[in-house]
Amino acid sequence: MNKWGDAAFNPRSIALIGASGQTGKLGYILMQNLQDGYPGLLYPINPREVEIMGHPAYPRIQDAPAPVDLAVIALPPESCVQAMRDCAAAGAKVALVLSGGFAEVGAEGAARQQAMLEIALQGGVRLIGPNCFGLYNCNLGLNASMGLGLPPKGGNISLVTQSGAYGMAIFGLARQRHLRFAKILSHGNKADLSDHEILDYLADDDETSVLCLFLESVSHGRAFFESLARAAQRKPIVVAKTGRSRAGQRAAASHTAALTGDATAFITAVRQAGAVLAESGLEMVDIAEALSRQPIPPGRRVGIITNSGGTGVELTDLCERFGLNVPELSPAVQAQITPLLPTYASPRNPVDVTPLWARFPAMYGGSIEAMYESDDIDIVIPILLQRSALMRENVEAVRDTVLRCQRERGIAKPTYICWVVGNEGEQTQAMLQDAGIPVYEWPERTARTAAAVAAYAEARRARAALPTTRETPPAGAYETASAILAHAHAQQRTILLENEVKQLLAAYGARIPRETLCTSPDEAVAVARALGNPCVLKIVSPDISHKSDVGGVRVGIAPEQVDTVFEEILATVQAKQPSAHILGISVQEVVRGQETIIGGLRDAEFGPLVMFGLGGVFVEVLHDISYRLVPASTGELQAMLREVRGYPLLTGVRGQPAVDLHALTNTLQAAAWLLDAFPQISELDLNPVIVGAEGAVVADGRAILSLS
Amino acid sequence: MNKWGDAAFNPRSIALIGASGQTGKLGYILMQNLQDGYPGLLYPINPREVEIMGHPAYPRIQDAPAPVDLAVIALPPESCVQAMRDCAAAGAKVALVLSGGFAEVGAEGAARQQAMLEIALQGGVRLIGPNCFGLYNCNLGLNASMGLGLPPKGGNISLVTQSGAYGMAIFGLARQRHLRFAKILSHGNKADLSDHEILDYLADDDETSVLCLFLESVSHGRAFFESLARAAQRKPIVVAKTGRSRAGQRAAASHTAALTGDATAFITAVRQAGAVLAESGLEMVDIAEALSRQPIPPGRRVGIITNSGGTGVELTDLCERFGLNVPELSPAVQAQITPLLPTYASPRNPVDVTPLWARFPAMYGGSIEAMYESDDIDIVIPILLQRSALMRENVEAVRDTVLRCQRERGIAKPTYICWVVGNEGEQTQAMLQDAGIPVYEWPERTARTAAAVAAYAEARRARAALPTTRETPPAGAYETASAILAHAHAQQRTILLENEVKQLLAAYGARIPRETLCTSPDEAVAVARALGNPCVLKIVSPDISHKSDVGGVRVGIAPEQVDTVFEEILATVQAKQPSAHILGISVQEVVRGQETIIGGLRDAEFGPLVMFGLGGVFVEVLHDISYRLVPASTGELQAMLREVRGYPLLTGVRGQPAVDLHALTNTLQAAAWLLDAFPQISELDLNPVIVGAEGAVVADGRAILSLS
Repeated sequence: MNKWGDAAFNPRSIALIGASGQTGKLGYILMQNLQDGYPGLLYPINPREVEIMGHPAYPRIQDAPAPVDLAVIALPPESCVQAMRDCAAAGAKVALVLSGGFAEVGAEGAARQQAMLEIALQGGVRLIGPNCFGLYNCNLGLNASMGLGLPPKGGNISLVTQSGAYGMAIFGLARQRHLRFAKILSHGNKADLSDHEILDYLADDDETSVLCLFLESVSHGRAFFESLARAAQRKPIVVAKTGRSRAGQRAAASHTAALTGDATAFITAVRQAGAVLAESGLEMVDIAEALSRQPIPPGRRVGIITNSGGTGVELTDLCERFGLNVPELSPAVQAQITPLLPTYASPRNPVDVTPLWARFPAMYGGSIEAMYESDDIDIVIPILLQRSALMRENVEAVRDTVLRCQRERGIAKPTYICWVVGNEGEQTQAMLQDAGIPVYEWPERTARTAAAVAAYAEARRARAALPTTRETPPAGAYETASAILAHAHAQQRTILLENEVKQLLAAYGARIPRETLCTSPDEAVAVARALGNPCVLKIVSPDISHKSDVGGVRVGIAPEQVDTVFEEILATVQAKQPSAHILGISVQEVVRGQETIIGGLRDAEFGPLVMFGLGGVFVEVLHDISYRLVPASTGELQAMLREVRGYPLLTGVRGQPAVDLHALTNTLQAAAWLLDAFPQISELDLNPVIVGAEGAVVADGRAILSLS
Repeated sequence: MNKWGDAAFNPRSIALIGASGQTGKLGYILMQNLQDGYPGLLYPINPREVEIMGHPAYPRIQDAPAPVDLAVIALPPESCVQAMRDCAAAGAKVALVLSGGFAEVGAEGAARQQAMLEIALQGGVRLIGPNCFGLYNCNLGLNASMGLGLPPKGGNISLVTQSGAYGMAIFGLARQRHLRFAKILSHGNKADLSDHEILDYLADDDETSVLCLFLESVSHGRAFFESLARAAQRKPIVVAKTGRSRAGQRAAASHTAALTGDATAFITAVRQAGAVLAESGLEMVDIAEALSRQPIPPGRRVGIITNSGGTGVELTDLCERFGLNVPELSPAVQAQITPLLPTYASPRNPVDVTPLWARFPAMYGGSIEAMYESDDIDIVIPILLQRSALMRENVEAVRDTVLRCQRERGIAKPTYICWVVGNEGEQTQAMLQDAGIPVYEWPERTARTAAAVAAYAEARRARAALPTTRETPPAGAYETASAILAHAHAQQRTILLENEVKQLLAAYGARIPRETLCTSPDEAVAVARALGNPCVLKIVSPDISHKSDVGGVRVGIAPEQVDTVFEEILATVQAKQPSAHILGISVQEVVRGQETIIGGLRDAEFGPLVMFGLGGVFVEVLHDISYRLVPASTGELQAMLREVRGYPLLTGVRGQPAVDLHALTNTLQAAAWLLDAFPQISELDLNPVIVGAEGAVVADGRAILSLS
């Protein structure tokens, strides 16, 4: 259902409602922009004019002589509702509302936006905006935006930006760097058309090979995630989102019309979908430039060529710091480079050609070629500093060598230039940019971008290698779990008993400890003797959620002490919470191993997530937690375990054996299935899940239900 | 002893050895640079000329008509040794050797450098370089460097750069940003004059108010640290050093003539000295600009004014991410700003003035003023994006408001501009820069710089509040420890027994567990009974360093089991290490509490360091460790505890009580004293040191001695 997309980006006809012949007016700028390059039918709409810039003007869109694909509305906000009515009457497919004065300015504006939206929905008009900058289809010559002038054709990056002003600043920066765009869309308040629909359209758009999203809010989070995941399978997608910090969320809420979703769920969604998360608009452009113009790096090993030793070392440091490697070159590659250099220069990595400028072209060219031919290097970064950057012949040698290796010889490795020279280098810089070789100023940005791209490439390869299958839950699990939840629901309970949580997990295939609910000391002693070892005693009450806090848990109790401890627990709990209805005391086997925590939560926009962390200080002090939206593939669940910093504890460190990762993944899977199947589970907290060399056991658990 | 400094930077006379009248030659460029602005006596030295650029030339420096303060040598490397001989003969105070071809080009060059150095040392000439770019004293008009042209006067930043080319690129960047310098020195191979001497000179230099150091290597690490600490008390010092990663160290070793010191010791030294550590040359300039032109921020609360909501939110996110706060403005401040804005704009933080450009000057100016007057805000960051940056009246309003608040009203808060516009903004940008208001492009760099400066300011305040006293060791500690070490030395041992390590620490005031060395099972049982609780048994042998690895440690042994376990330990150890000489088994009390690790090591350049970390996974898996060079003040030792990520475990988390931080600091202090007093201790490993609510106990320890 991408009819809106074709109507918006490839319209056969455009009506400009609010067109004007008066210089300086928005309707004038838009008219100019449209007639500048747009090859289709253009109808200025203005009841007070008969002709604008040589085009006959019409009083209303209904009066246009042919059906309108795209209506561009640039009127005072008060007039927009009527204009939308006209669009509906005229059968316009898409209305792009540039005007501000809607939800972003308060209640009155929000009501106006709602009225306009309802008319659009009823009339079958898709609404883009309001309060947006407009759109471009550069290759068509279409500029339906407030920005002056037509960008050059032939670009392959598309940009979707919620922020008008900042989005246009990003676009300006990119143009300054000789980047070309395919399509640009600013969707402002997103009253109707939303991110996932735009994603769906641009995922299929052959002219878009890299997609940048600059977002302030996300609506329809789950649909966004699913569209993003589909689109990311087809092309690199770079996402930046503001409002990720708490203060930023507050600021965003006071700025944009939409609510800002939770940052954790958003970040999880972007990563899980396989898109690149950029920290800022600037980083988004840097990464998009690398991805759109150069091959994806086959690995993270960087080869550096420099005419300044100090800069080479700094770039090496920064590459390593951001997770790249700058390996020694093999003797064979060194032998290839050595004859090019003066005797005292280093053929190691970085290759330091020294200030011997007369030989720059041969030294740079030859070293780059050797690195392209070598199996040691995945990414080639020439540093061009002062003279080596200003010397035309050298820049040509760098450019031509890279192009020859990539295009003629088909070696798929990227080159990024680290550029250290002032404004006087503009011309030579453009020689590289125009040849599709990205130029980054100073080592830090170069290293950061290369690292982000290498991480993306690696994640893509890892993703391709992961099992993408989603397992099916055990037969009967749903029915068993439904019964347990129905029982709690019948009792109007919002908290599940520990035992019920365990039964839910067991139904979905997780292991739980052997345990028995006992109502008398004698029964407890008998159960403890049957277990054979010291055991755990835990109070069971629908009124008690945090059992330890009321003295309701005792660990490591020998069978002969069980009756005394049984009475002690009852006495303590009754003293601390006299009103609690106590069902008995559960006697459980002790399980040994590494403590982990598996949790579940439900984001308002993105739906259910599972979380994983190691027990003890890892979650509580270090906040060392990984997340996935569910449903998630087995591969994603496995990756969750590897993502936490404490992962080495699971694979065997300090003489401990490796734990049973398979069993742990199964327990995560059980939690994920539960969250997926039962929307009434709003929180799940399996703490601890104890995992040893053989098996993982859910030793305790809580769940909170919504009453709906 | 700063005679070299005055001779180098304020020479009464300069001889240029290798002066030339031939365009393009280095001796020509230097001659031009020197006669361009240098007001003192200038003697070109060239045996083949009688006059150069209007100055009489002399065949040798000895032939100059007056004593020479500064000899600048620009000759082929082969001729430099003789030139240095001449300098010594002429009594030149300083020789600045620009020529390359010395230690950086291999063994032959190194020999040449050594020969030149020896002549300089014998002749009382201080040698700067060789293989360096030269020096500037901008306010004097002195350019004794390879760089063309004379920088403007009136600057207050000085730059010391080991890297010639990169240093000059940094200098060029800074000039492009209208920054002015006081003094610049490139010292290349640092054959003689080294970092700490330069630090000493520039610390006292009244024209230098901020000092930048760009280093590739550090020699005389301890002296460097001490000079840095002294200098940092007087002015902000920003340090960048390449070769911090392992690959970077390898690259540095192949590039510079000096060895690269260990990054841990270097980083510790810079922080402990109170200097700012920059991650790159670019970040160094960014931070120096902020520190040299604006007041130091009184706190980390940022106020933002923006004409683009999206950019405001992004900057907020990035500020928070780098550790700054963007708080809500108080109702009073909001009430002050609200009347300036359109009704729908947000007076919260960020203050979003919306695209209403006609009112930019009033809205920006008024909001800035309100933030200067408010107690809620420490740092004011106006975002100038597109139109707000290009509009001259608005840039004037921003500039004039900041200057009025700072200069006329004396409000000591910094303003940094976040600048989001293309090259077309050069002129308005310069208006701000020339008024001393730093401009940073795009949000990321702005936030990063503000955060670095705020962290510096906070560390400076914290440092001022810390006890700077260094405690004195307990009486008799040195004698007791000396005796223990002498005993081990007499036996030619390089490993101390656990018991000896504990006695060393006890001598310096640390607590150790009650323990007795037992040679028979019966004796062990008696000791265990006296301790009263389950105890620890540990093998004691000078040949066994890692006792657990050979089954030599058993924990939690009840008195009645002690005889059996005693025999078991002996049997296991004898089986695993039959040749070990066993002195007995130590029976020790069990100590409970949080496990920590205190260590000591000795860096070749920087001398002894203490380290601290929490036990378990913190050190081994998370590498969560803090370091200090010793001796260190009590305040520094206290700060070490707070620096580790796991610090919350010490202050009470998860229902645990806070531990005895005072006792832990005392144990760190004992280790520090030991390392300081006894250079023969090359490694110290107190693991674990167990700390509870009352007291800290060194439960186990190892030490390695050097045999010298």
